[in-house]
Amino acid sequence: MKVTILGSSSALPTSERFPSAHVLNAHERLFLIDCGEGTQMQLRKNKIKFSKINHIFISHLHGDHVFGLYGLLSTFNLMGRQNPICLYAPENYHQILLSHLDDFDINLGFEVDFIPLSGNDPVKILDDKYITVNSFPLEHRVPAFGFLFREKTSDRNIIKESIIKYQIPSLRIPAIKKGEDFITSEGVLIKNEDITLPPPEPLSYAYCSDTKYSRRVATFVKGVNLLYHEATFDKSLSDLAGITCHSTTLDAAKTANEANAGTLLIGHFSARYKDIMPLVEEARSLFPDTFPAIDGQTYDIANINNP
Amino acid sequence: MKVTILGSSSALPTSERFPSAHVLNAHERLFLIDCGEGTQMQLRKNKIKFSKINHIFISHLHGDHVFGLYGLLSTFNLMGRQNPICLYAPENYHQILLSHLDDFDINLGFEVDFIPLSGNDPVKILDDKYITVNSFPLEHRVPAFGFLFREKTSDRNIIKESIIKYQIPSLRIPAIKKGEDFITSEGVLIKNEDITLPPPEPLSYAYCSDTKYSRRVATFVKGVNLLYHEATFDKSLSDLAGITCHSTTLDAAKTANEANAGTLLIGHFSARYKDIMPLVEEARSLFPDTFPAIDGQTYDIANINNP
Repeated sequence: MKVTILGSSSALPTSERFPSAHVLNAHERLFLIDCGEGTQMQLRKNKIKFSKINHIFISHLHGDHVFGLYGLLSTFNLMGRQNPICLYAPENYHQILLSHLDDFDINLGFEVDFIPLSGNDPVKILDDKYITVNSFPLEHRVPAFGFLFREKTSDRNIIKESIIKYQIPSLRIPAIKKGEDFITSEGVLIKNEDITLPPPEPLSYAYCSDTKYSRRVATFVKGVNLLYHEATFDKSLSDLAGITCHSTTLDAAKTANEANAGTLLIGHFSARYKDIMPLVEEARSLFPDTFPAIDGQTYDIANINNP
Repeated sequence: MKVTILGSSSALPTSERFPSAHVLNAHERLFLIDCGEGTQMQLRKNKIKFSKINHIFISHLHGDHVFGLYGLLSTFNLMGRQNPICLYAPENYHQILLSHLDDFDINLGFEVDFIPLSGNDPVKILDDKYITVNSFPLEHRVPAFGFLFREKTSDRNIIKESIIKYQIPSLRIPAIKKGEDFITSEGVLIKNEDITLPPPEPLSYAYCSDTKYSRRVATFVKGVNLLYHEATFDKSLSDLAGITCHSTTLDAAKTANEANAGTLLIGHFSARYKDIMPLVEEARSLFPDTFPAIDGQTYDIANINNP
């Protein structure tokens, strides 16, 4: 799994930072998380294939997380898209979207499968061959939701040499990959761990934006490999963070600590910061493995030290 | 007067071309014409002052001309804007805008003075100290309007030496600038043209997008100095232009000829064209003084040969 940042700005974009949008690549399937203004230009600039996006997640109904969606859906349409798109968004957005597309004479040639987000508890919103996705509530001025993407444990890898050595028929291989032992034609039991290697550790990625510090959030993303958490403000502006229901660098780091996250990625930076490294340093004082979200950068979740 | 192109793309933006938006600078007052997605990023990239924009003109309700407006108004708000903004747009947009801002929790701290566009004839929609603006109907799939910006004739310039030579009292100067003759203390009549120079020719700029070829359009922009006319397609795609109510290069050039325009600027290029110079050459075959609209370029209307 790897995540590409299309926008790391808060509500006011800068010449360096577009509004919020991330693309998670899990097994070459792309998940778009938030869709701020200009997302389609950023996708193009970063040479990301529009046709590979089949799921769009909208955290909350503030413009800097949504206003790129109308243009993107319209572009899908102009490109002749026929595959449906799954749209996960706060429940009241469905009607808003439909009426706005109608106002603008946009007749989509593909289905939008709308999955409404609501409630005050985590909900499994997607479960496919490779991953599960849970939504969970954040604490913001309007209903807002975070997303936790977890890879499923994949099958064990069979050791090729053992196939020849023990003359394992190919019909038996799927069961062995699931953990079964093997009995040779001479009736000798070969233990599974002698003919297979364990699969790679399943990875996970959590997206938490926008939110003020909330003790509950850490419980929802416990043990996540990469935690993206907004850090709109530096620590001196904690009052402003409180009023606007945003987080400071230290709030993000505290959540990463409480969740026992592997790595912390901070973003959604206020336009007042030209240089964001002091924000990263602040977060590192509490949680050393902190990195900044930078527009156009891709972060390998298995190896975040080398973006 | 000069115009800066923020977006020269048609509905599908490319990595080089943003959707439609122009900024006309007339006497250091900025007029934003159309507001496609990403307009606020392009304004920032081109170092154009947001606070100098007090008038926004929306040609029609297709997303590639409007979807940057929500983000721009929201940004005005976050920057603490208090001055009202005059918004000229098709009449049914007022309610759409208000309800969409409401849906997204955007409470503007400034007034939006909405000037509805409608009807099938030219209408003077702005008349101030320096310029007049007329809207006029285009022919597109939805109601669409062009805009004609005309500088007013300024006062004549008094020849400084003549003030001393004829001992002209400063109280008399405003009337002389308006064209009055002067009578010296000895009773000698000095003709106005001997003590003043004519003002520079007033300039004009017309914006015509989106539209199919229409004979009427040329009559509305007769004698304009710089005509911006969409040319979505090359001449071989005239059938497609007809179906989609867009123009080809030759349609734009024909209109420029019929209007006796000074210079033609073409834009709103289909994403299928990577190199737009063949489109310019096609238009030049009918109307030699044709130039391409290029994102980030500024065109001086008095001297369009040197963008």
